[in-house]
Amino acid sequence: MQKYLIFVLALATVACSANEVKPEQKIYPIAKQVVTEANPANFTGKVYTRGVWSAKAPMQANGAFVIFTPGSRTYWHEHPTGQSFIVTEGEGYVQEEGKPKVVLHAGDGVVCPPGVKHWHGGSKDKMMIQFAISEKVPGKQTAIWHEPVSDEQYNSH
Amino acid sequence: MQKYLIFVLALATVACSANEVKPEQKIYPIAKQVVTEANPANFTGKVYTRGVWSAKAPMQANGAFVIFTPGSRTYWHEHPTGQSFIVTEGEGYVQEEGKPKVVLHAGDGVVCPPGVKHWHGGSKDKMMIQFAISEKVPGKQTAIWHEPVSDEQYNSH
Repeated sequence: MQKYLIFVLALATVACSANEVKPEQKIYPIAKQVVTEANPANFTGKVYTRGVWSAKAPMQANGAFVIFTPGSRTYWHEHPTGQSFIVTEGEGYVQEEGKPKVVLHAGDGVVCPPGVKHWHGGSKDKMMIQFAISEKVPGKQTAIWHEPVSDEQYNSH
Repeated sequence: MQKYLIFVLALATVACSANEVKPEQKIYPIAKQVVTEANPANFTGKVYTRGVWSAKAPMQANGAFVIFTPGSRTYWHEHPTGQSFIVTEGEGYVQEEGKPKVVLHAGDGVVCPPGVKHWHGGSKDKMMIQFAISEKVPGKQTAIWHEPVSDEQYNSH
């Protein structure tokens, strides 16, 4: 009986090792990336997202394109573990609460640390495409959403 | 004397709070980003980098462009906390050790988990620009470098 138990335990150990997933590189071809409209509950105007990858611990960086049509923007929001983005095309705006709006162009980078309230969007007459890196840790959302950005705030200098 | 001490302590507390840096959003305009040649000790051929931002805990994502001229590539290497990248322009290759080389085009994403040995580079006759997110945690390097990628490996199918 004891021998049988040892045999079963050994077998179980082998089965568990086989189930352990060896980490491997993953490719996310553009052909398989899906463009969806961003949730209108958190955005003003037409905004689209194209998710590329989701992070798996210990990595934190989720990668996604955000396509802002002219005049469109996020609501005011904050990122519990921070977000950074690089503008890959066009022209847009970003504003931290209590500071002036900043105009962005292709190639500009932005880092928004945890808990800093801000918004971003396309410019009045141009689109902005950004590649956004939203950092994700277990048990925390990547964004907390607040009120819309008013036209007055959007058009401010 | 006691009143004086309380006053000094109160003053010190105010001074310390003033020194506490409130997190704020940072902009990295393209005009201030510097292009440098990648360290020839870890790359074959001409490769350039354009750093955009460095992460500050709890954020982990460093952001930088890597510009591979045709035929150029990294040495074999691994990332202790992983690296992901999006191809922003051109055509290139990526290969995980023990697997076939994969051809990449603009818009394709790649996630390389911690400890997976791989290389990436431009294609034989085209450049590849990638925006790379190297995840950084305190006390760990972002990359561990190994041997060069041979011409046979580079030209493999």
